Amino acid sequence: MTLREEALHMHRINQGKLETVSKVPVRNADDLSLAYSPGVAEPCKAIYDKPETVYEYTMKGNTVAVVTDGTAVLGLGNIGPEAAMPVMEGKAVLFKSFAGVDAFPICLNTNDVDKIVETVKLLEPTFGGVNLEDIAAPNCFVIEERLKKETNIPIFHDDQHGTAIVTAAGLVNALKITGRTMSEIKVVANGAGAAGIAIIKLLYSYGVRDIIMCDSRGAIYEGRPFGMNAVKESVAKFTNREKQGGTLKEVISGSDVFVGVSVAGALTKEMVESMNPDPIIFAMANPVPEIMPEEAKLAGAKIVGTGRSDFPNQVNNVLAFPGIFRGALDVRATHINEKMKVAAVEAIAGLISDDELQADYVIPAPFDPRVAPEVAAAVARAAMETGVARIKVDPEEIKEKTRQLSSIDKDE
Amino acid sequence: MTLREEALHMHRINQGKLETVSKVPVRNADDLSLAYSPGVAEPCKAIYDKPETVYEYTMKGNTVAVVTDGTAVLGLGNIGPEAAMPVMEGKAVLFKSFAGVDAFPICLNTNDVDKIVETVKLLEPTFGGVNLEDIAAPNCFVIEERLKKETNIPIFHDDQHGTAIVTAAGLVNALKITGRTMSEIKVVANGAGAAGIAIIKLLYSYGVRDIIMCDSRGAIYEGRPFGMNAVKESVAKFTNREKQGGTLKEVISGSDVFVGVSVAGALTKEMVESMNPDPIIFAMANPVPEIMPEEAKLAGAKIVGTGRSDFPNQVNNVLAFPGIFRGALDVRATHINEKMKVAAVEAIAGLISDDELQADYVIPAPFDPRVAPEVAAAVARAAMETGVARIKVDPEEIKEKTRQLSSIDKDE
Repeated sequence: MTLREEALHMHRINQGKLETVSKVPVRNADDLSLAYSPGVAEPCKAIYDKPETVYEYTMKGNTVAVVTDGTAVLGLGNIGPEAAMPVMEGKAVLFKSFAGVDAFPICLNTNDVDKIVETVKLLEPTFGGVNLEDIAAPNCFVIEERLKKETNIPIFHDDQHGTAIVTAAGLVNALKITGRTMSEIKVVANGAGAAGIAIIKLLYSYGVRDIIMCDSRGAIYEGRPFGMNAVKESVAKFTNREKQGGTLKEVISGSDVFVGVSVAGALTKEMVESMNPDPIIFAMANPVPEIMPEEAKLAGAKIVGTGRSDFPNQVNNVLAFPGIFRGALDVRATHINEKMKVAAVEAIAGLISDDELQADYVIPAPFDPRVAPEVAAAVARAAMETGVARIKVDPEEIKEKTRQLSSIDKDE
Repeated sequence: MTLREEALHMHRINQGKLETVSKVPVRNADDLSLAYSPGVAEPCKAIYDKPETVYEYTMKGNTVAVVTDGTAVLGLGNIGPEAAMPVMEGKAVLFKSFAGVDAFPICLNTNDVDKIVETVKLLEPTFGGVNLEDIAAPNCFVIEERLKKETNIPIFHDDQHGTAIVTAAGLVNALKITGRTMSEIKVVANGAGAAGIAIIKLLYSYGVRDIIMCDSRGAIYEGRPFGMNAVKESVAKFTNREKQGGTLKEVISGSDVFVGVSVAGALTKEMVESMNPDPIIFAMANPVPEIMPEEAKLAGAKIVGTGRSDFPNQVNNVLAFPGIFRGALDVRATHINEKMKVAAVEAIAGLISDDELQADYVIPAPFDPRVAPEVAAAVARAAMETGVARIKVDPEEIKEKTRQLSSIDKDE
């Protein structure tokens, strides 16, 4: 069977990938009297008396909504909420497999920002957190910002921050190899979608000061008279301070790092050759990167990362989101803030020791079972330190719990 | 431990009762490439090309939303959406245990009819059906009616129709014992909430013509100058055609059947004595019935049913909703119509053979493993016969599948 046939077959014979399962037995009247009437009235009354106990007596505290409107699904674009279901179910499967988080697809039949925000707010009683997924820019920015303000549960747009966190982790390690620091490098990013913008924002908060972001019309700068929007304007306020115009080819010369979240072939050998010595390339277009790793290496690249599993240094969001939500849920965090994201970056990067570090190993493998436990513990610690945790939990406990809950790299 | 302590303990140690579980393994990169990128793009594209295949490739076709606003939870009243979570999780557990239906709690942070309707409509891409639960009257009627018109998936308010279906099944069998027919009996119902109104509507469509419904202010009749609302007005159009006023005590005299969904003690010995010979009593107030069975029997009642598991003839919704949704989902029904409800009544009643039938056994036991399979098959058949099924499936297949999926009365 081809991969296509195998994937269709697997989805069809299972009627999807996710199911809901009882954690308690219901075989007889005694079971029923505890799980349902009359016993169930007791946790109901307890929560009514003390609302925060909803985290103790219900699934809320371990449950994340995977919310989409189906407008930017994989590389397929605006295919709608029904066709997005397989991806959202898959995401839920990853949440559970990597970190024991219960997740559920919420595929919404609207592209309207106000309606999406309103719906997620109305769903808040059920969910301990919200993972926004595959919502097109610029709506995704507005939806995330509004929900962060208008709810009291963690809101995380994985296409932005998951990619940003893993890319930053790779860059932290790559700079150790090339002996440079965040403050001295020049970064050129290609692709001004959700992921690209989140990456340069995170790099900026990491101390990178020389950044140029390009879209399909070239370098973005403050006051560019064409192809701007609110988000690009905000990016232009802290990047490209010399207001340099021109194509990617023109602005990439003399830079140290390329970050691509754009399209296949966007980066040429000549462009890599025009960069500073030992350049670092993250070519994350899917499924075909901006430049193939071997070609980039031939042109002088020191370190190359892609989105693909068949090359070294795969930038895979699965390194971030399961552990981030595990840590956030376990301390009943109200938000996922910048410090928690930075903690995730450091946890991911720190898993590779200085002895192990090499050009083809700056990012841990997606199925490295140490990742989610380390990320969960680090994120929980950062949440407690920054005052967004509702309860205090020993991070070592969270690490051990995540290890237990993960089904990664374990026998069946 | 008391039941209270045991119930709280059970809910706390499990952090609720429901979890989401992957139906496919995700242990390595090969697994990931099928369940997630790149393989997952194939079912996405297939659904985009042919929307109805969402039922083949995703969980939608086996998944029901258990929707509440927390305004009428058990006997606890308006305790809000968080405190309603344990009941909705419990309901989801019953769906799965009795009929293999995946169900998920949707507890909404609003009491506004328009917002509830809008939200459920926006969630339609994810769910194959919607079970409305514990929403106060009269909002529950409006919400159900609107959703039935404005969506293309089955909408079922269990507090109304589940109770009505099981009560009607009990009455079908009770009338066999007392040798009467639906068209000749007089029914008095006490309690004009969601369940009471649904019961008399279903009895009317079964041919009962002499019905008087009472609320806390007595018999309801057309044009009653006090305590009416739109729903009671509509009830008054087909009941109590002689426009009899007065208390329950005054109107119950000479009736054959009492249906109580009201409050403890509402029915007295004297009232039962004033009924026709061999009266049939369904006293379903919870946890304490309108009259205790032994007292009713002493007063001459021939057959007594209650909502309680410790008396014979328990009117328990779990006899209806799991099989109804199993049958509706398996033929991808667009609606649950009257014929499907009647089919469920007949299937439940028909499980007790004429030989087995006796005054203390007119309703099957909740854990009778034959019930859900019979109901599922009957409902699916009725859906196909009335043109609301999107596909044709052999009802015998559905019966066998439901048997397989049920965990009731099976060893662990």
